[in-house]
Amino acid sequence: MKAEIIFTGTELLLGQIANTHAQYLGERLSALGIETTRQVTVGDDWEGITGALREALGRADLVIITGGLGPTEDDLTMAAVAEVLERPLVLYEQALRRIDEYFAAQGKTTPPNVVKEAYLPEGAKLLPNENGTAPGCLLEDRGKILVVLPGPPRELQPMYEKYVEPRLREKLGNEAGVLYYRVLKLTGISECATQEKLKDLAASSVNPRIGYVVKPGEVHVRISSTASTQDEARLRVEELLKKVEERVKDYVFAYDEEQIEEVVGQLLRDRGFTIGVAESCTGGLLGGRLTNVPGSSDYFLGGVIAYANEVKERVLGVPSEVLRTVGAVSSQTAQAMAEGIKRLLGTTLGVGITGIAGPGGGTPQKPVGLVYIALATPEGTEVKRFEFPGHRAAVRQGAVNGALMMVRRYLEKGI
Amino acid sequence: MKAEIIFTGTELLLGQIANTHAQYLGERLSALGIETTRQVTVGDDWEGITGALREALGRADLVIITGGLGPTEDDLTMAAVAEVLERPLVLYEQALRRIDEYFAAQGKTTPPNVVKEAYLPEGAKLLPNENGTAPGCLLEDRGKILVVLPGPPRELQPMYEKYVEPRLREKLGNEAGVLYYRVLKLTGISECATQEKLKDLAASSVNPRIGYVVKPGEVHVRISSTASTQDEARLRVEELLKKVEERVKDYVFAYDEEQIEEVVGQLLRDRGFTIGVAESCTGGLLGGRLTNVPGSSDYFLGGVIAYANEVKERVLGVPSEVLRTVGAVSSQTAQAMAEGIKRLLGTTLGVGITGIAGPGGGTPQKPVGLVYIALATPEGTEVKRFEFPGHRAAVRQGAVNGALMMVRRYLEKGI
Repeated sequence: MKAEIIFTGTELLLGQIANTHAQYLGERLSALGIETTRQVTVGDDWEGITGALREALGRADLVIITGGLGPTEDDLTMAAVAEVLERPLVLYEQALRRIDEYFAAQGKTTPPNVVKEAYLPEGAKLLPNENGTAPGCLLEDRGKILVVLPGPPRELQPMYEKYVEPRLREKLGNEAGVLYYRVLKLTGISECATQEKLKDLAASSVNPRIGYVVKPGEVHVRISSTASTQDEARLRVEELLKKVEERVKDYVFAYDEEQIEEVVGQLLRDRGFTIGVAESCTGGLLGGRLTNVPGSSDYFLGGVIAYANEVKERVLGVPSEVLRTVGAVSSQTAQAMAEGIKRLLGTTLGVGITGIAGPGGGTPQKPVGLVYIALATPEGTEVKRFEFPGHRAAVRQGAVNGALMMVRRYLEKGI
Repeated sequence: MKAEIIFTGTELLLGQIANTHAQYLGERLSALGIETTRQVTVGDDWEGITGALREALGRADLVIITGGLGPTEDDLTMAAVAEVLERPLVLYEQALRRIDEYFAAQGKTTPPNVVKEAYLPEGAKLLPNENGTAPGCLLEDRGKILVVLPGPPRELQPMYEKYVEPRLREKLGNEAGVLYYRVLKLTGISECATQEKLKDLAASSVNPRIGYVVKPGEVHVRISSTASTQDEARLRVEELLKKVEERVKDYVFAYDEEQIEEVVGQLLRDRGFTIGVAESCTGGLLGGRLTNVPGSSDYFLGGVIAYANEVKERVLGVPSEVLRTVGAVSSQTAQAMAEGIKRLLGTTLGVGITGIAGPGGGTPQKPVGLVYIALATPEGTEVKRFEFPGHRAAVRQGAVNGALMMVRRYLEKGI
């Protein structure tokens, strides 16, 4: 099922308010396996709304239109829908009763112009508005579904979840076109390099297809498929996923909606382990991420932000000779930091991070993005060398993800 | 002049990210007096992008298209523009040089696929990207203006303001209106409480008008005016700003585009001061924020993340009696933490943060959101009690902003 969404409202075009429906509906539909192929925003004008409706109905199976259901002259949506579907607007007594009750509850009578809200295109299924006066409606016409929803988010969202989504689910039950996707989250590798590794797989596969999203310090590889059944789509995705994973397994730190700090937290809690962090270039961000999780005090005892070399030496016990000879950004320093914090706090695990976040300070031998991460465990200390791509924030977030990836791997498989 | 805007990106359609350009560009254009008549979002697919471009160019005088300028196979925008305008893509040597320099500055060579970003439609005016590699471009074709901008907001916004808006102003001559606005960033107060304080001012003023934006740990009060001249708009805004500021001055931590950590960093550097942090509920986020700023090693020496009480006691020297009697979330503990880190690292200033981030752990006496922040200085230690509204992330970010606000105030005026 392909969907298009039309947002009406001159205030959206003027940037007076943010369009929060775009993300909300995009995400809800995609979770159902419905592919949104286009979103259009038009103003409160007749030509704009009817034009957008005709175009969308010409292309998509499902059209959702939001806003413009109020009582003013600017509110044209219901009339535009009636015009485009060539149906008359008729009074829905049930809708009018609800509106009258709404005002009566406030000790008022219904203002004459609000009566307009009770007129819907003939044959429409009424969608009650539990947080306002204007009802929405759902129409099925020539094999297409058209859904009309109110503009305010607090009216739209409950109406969508209570009345629209169940109907879409029902429809999808016996119809072709289910979207399924998985996401691999990678760190320590650039989007370019990821694409290079997967080039032939991506080129030879259209359904499932491979897509990329880049965030600071992470690359998401998204494998999606549309098929006639959920099982078929899943099968296709999982098959390609295995091949993709094989190629990039050194960089995968999380899957799908997982929050890596929650995964690590649960693993630590399950083992009864504690952890401490020693951070240089990340400046506290790893501690910040670990403590995003409520209840993290069960396993996170604390850390030292050792930004200055003197702090690395004096508080964490990094040998001054190491700092003098191989420097602060080195495997040895990372190791001494991890072991130092483990010793200082008496934790099961200790993490040490040291690197060059940039933008300055890089050399050909030690470029911006070079980060050493050490994990001290009861069985010994592992150190990894990373080169994180991108600007300062990306390098720092990458280092946090890299550190959490190492802890996760250790806890899942041992060192 | 009528404008249409096309946003490209499958992640927008899927609701994976919010479309912040819609509001930003809508507002900027409307301030110039340009009417946006339609906004369209399409995925990263050839038919979608070229179709949307053709339609928009058929209707509008100005078309802006965003996103899809990166190096991957998904990035189709520049090729689609070339196709629709029937112009070849040609190598812009100047663009390639900038890309090479960008990578060289990081001690790297330009990856082969990034070279693609230096190809623009023939005759296009290059728009330099000062925060990334992919340039944008501006084309004038058969009386229409077509502007191509990168997707990331931190790349798009400076490019638009520096290169696109001046050209549009020129085109418009003296028809252009002028938008002027100021933003006050508040912490330690809820949106509702802020609105309550400003209710009468907001109700009695349409131009300038007062708007609110809420982010985790901050409330932004935005005062904006549109007028025929910059001076007139500014005058109106500054007059109202004074009144607003008077009412909320205890909560203001930053103005406009200021990054509080940069402001604080510059103040520390100017005085030749150093700083250390002792963090409990913020878990390292304050250190993380301070070290967002390149060159922060000039004044930030490090810190201790004292999540467990034992760490507060053993590493920072918080008296065990304080922890036992008044507890970890108390004015005394915050003070001992701030003084402890100042002593441990030998810094000019020390910050201590302790509080209840939630969602659990609150009591009527010590509710979720209660945070004590202490600032130890050569003249003594100041402690403030905050109650930050909202969920865990908001409380933690609020505490970071509150701490930076205290440091800023001290450095600007003394304790």
